Amino acid sequence: MGAALKRDLPQAHRSDEDALAALLNLVGGDMEACNDTILARMDSPVTLIPELATHIIAAGGKRLRPLLTLATSRLCGYPGDRGGKRHIQLAACVEFIHTATLLHDDVVDASDLRRGSASANAVFGSKAAVLVGDFLFARAFQLMVEDGSQEVLAILSRAAATIAEGEVLQLTTQNDLSTSEANYLNVVEGKTAALFAAACEVSGVVAECSARLTRALGNFGRSLGIAFQLVDDALDYAADQNTLGKVVGDDFREGKITLPVLIAHAGADETERRFWQRTVERLEQKPDDLRQALALIEKHHAIERTLDRAAQFAHSAKRALSEFPESELREALWNAADYTVCRAR
Amino acid sequence: MGAALKRDLPQAHRSDEDALAALLNLVGGDMEACNDTILARMDSPVTLIPELATHIIAAGGKRLRPLLTLATSRLCGYPGDRGGKRHIQLAACVEFIHTATLLHDDVVDASDLRRGSASANAVFGSKAAVLVGDFLFARAFQLMVEDGSQEVLAILSRAAATIAEGEVLQLTTQNDLSTSEANYLNVVEGKTAALFAAACEVSGVVAECSARLTRALGNFGRSLGIAFQLVDDALDYAADQNTLGKVVGDDFREGKITLPVLIAHAGADETERRFWQRTVERLEQKPDDLRQALALIEKHHAIERTLDRAAQFAHSAKRALSEFPESELREALWNAADYTVCRAR
Repeated sequence: MGAALKRDLPQAHRSDEDALAALLNLVGGDMEACNDTILARMDSPVTLIPELATHIIAAGGKRLRPLLTLATSRLCGYPGDRGGKRHIQLAACVEFIHTATLLHDDVVDASDLRRGSASANAVFGSKAAVLVGDFLFARAFQLMVEDGSQEVLAILSRAAATIAEGEVLQLTTQNDLSTSEANYLNVVEGKTAALFAAACEVSGVVAECSARLTRALGNFGRSLGIAFQLVDDALDYAADQNTLGKVVGDDFREGKITLPVLIAHAGADETERRFWQRTVERLEQKPDDLRQALALIEKHHAIERTLDRAAQFAHSAKRALSEFPESELREALWNAADYTVCRAR
Repeated sequence: MGAALKRDLPQAHRSDEDALAALLNLVGGDMEACNDTILARMDSPVTLIPELATHIIAAGGKRLRPLLTLATSRLCGYPGDRGGKRHIQLAACVEFIHTATLLHDDVVDASDLRRGSASANAVFGSKAAVLVGDFLFARAFQLMVEDGSQEVLAILSRAAATIAEGEVLQLTTQNDLSTSEANYLNVVEGKTAALFAAACEVSGVVAECSARLTRALGNFGRSLGIAFQLVDDALDYAADQNTLGKVVGDDFREGKITLPVLIAHAGADETERRFWQRTVERLEQKPDDLRQALALIEKHHAIERTLDRAAQFAHSAKRALSEFPESELREALWNAADYTVCRAR
């Protein structure tokens, strides 16, 4: 990432939050109600469960996925005058699925940091993190069962299976520089975009939209999710740790194959290829290797090109929204798609 | 466990299998159909998933839980002449939930053996075991969603949450000799009996039994599950590793608090109490400690007394069945309850 790009980060990051703040504003008290549901439903007589869950859920995070459920529901006119609460319960369900996968991700990656704080596995041990993840996953299913819609259940249970498939696929591409960009995108679609898509698609069901509009919501979520993950993967080679609560170089240290590395490797000369093989495939890393990796990423414009791809997906997301009539909410969702990418520019 | 008890094991174990064989016989081709469903539904384009799942699912195991679903369905007259297949799909669902918890258990316990063979985490790594467990869990939910019954969904999703609660509770009692027998039973009810109960209770729903009979099925499964786990915990201090594919002393080495230890500790003199504190609470174990633990377990008749408790629960299980009219199937389920305990006598 160029120095200019880096200088721009703090402001872009603020804009990102502005876009989300506008969305939050438009969903009124729904996010507060969703937070109440989350707190109430993560409770258990087994006190370690709410203790650990509070650590990861209540400690923050942007609540991006439940926000999408709440906002797209309203975009479709739900609950309108009927005062329904289904979107709130489903938003909580989506956040529980997300949190369960975060807990298991951190165990799998042996990460010590999450959102700038100690991860749950670092504080409570990886055993507890695995099992509380299972609890939250099961609780998510209870929430969707309570909704009672067969269609909602099909969407969310399929998404849960797809997420797990994406995570396993990611494991098999790890340390493998021959991973194709298509397979990398399969990983991203599974581990990230499937839940974004489901979070939006259920709104169409709850609001009794047409099949066409419900599909459009799913496409919006899927494209937005891919854009979001591409930016995340770019930030792993660029982010300011203090600003974003992310450790730069985590993916590099684990030998995770992401688009910035694939781009830099595709354009590499013989010496550079040997560098990537040693560091990312064989994980033989020396103290100065991350700096060298960042230099190669910059040399091949790998961040900019990753962000360009992200911008294409953000564009697709916006196009999917064009099926809906103009409204403040559509505008805010549109901006959220833009700022997903801008947070890194 | 006394020498006489140990000598009896091989034959008792055969009887156990005879009881299950009789049940298998009575469910006709249903178990084969269930196995076909299991194999078909654990498939995925992400090849590591069927590879790992085959390792744990196809490698055997008694299929006790799905067998209970199949047998109790028939006990209730399902499918009768209607040729329904719901019990087969739900039996597969139950086995998937069980397998997912096994995968996560082995990661949490860092076990290298499962059913006498290398565990999935030992062969494929614990990352893959966590994530494939998540996949099987999600796939189980897809299977139950396809069933379409709101009542079935409520029973199985509640069971999944209860299992996770039981597992977390077990984690908090680990290395804690002040655990009460009541709390130990809470762990057993959660981690084992909840799924046994759900596996039977769904049959009542599918067969459209009365609420009273459906509850009786749940009680049968719950009591049987508790008996089963108590015997399992007894065998951990008594089993012949070659016969049962279980490593003797696993629970001891991990400092897991089970009834045999609670009984031996309750009757311990000062020296013995210090032994348990050092080995099970502080996990400071020396090569000869397992032998000493087994001697103390025998001195306090802790195996026999654990099996007596198991027999009480097996009796409750049989009593729950008395709500049903006499039939070959009721007899076979009755015998299965008896032999659950006899396998260790």
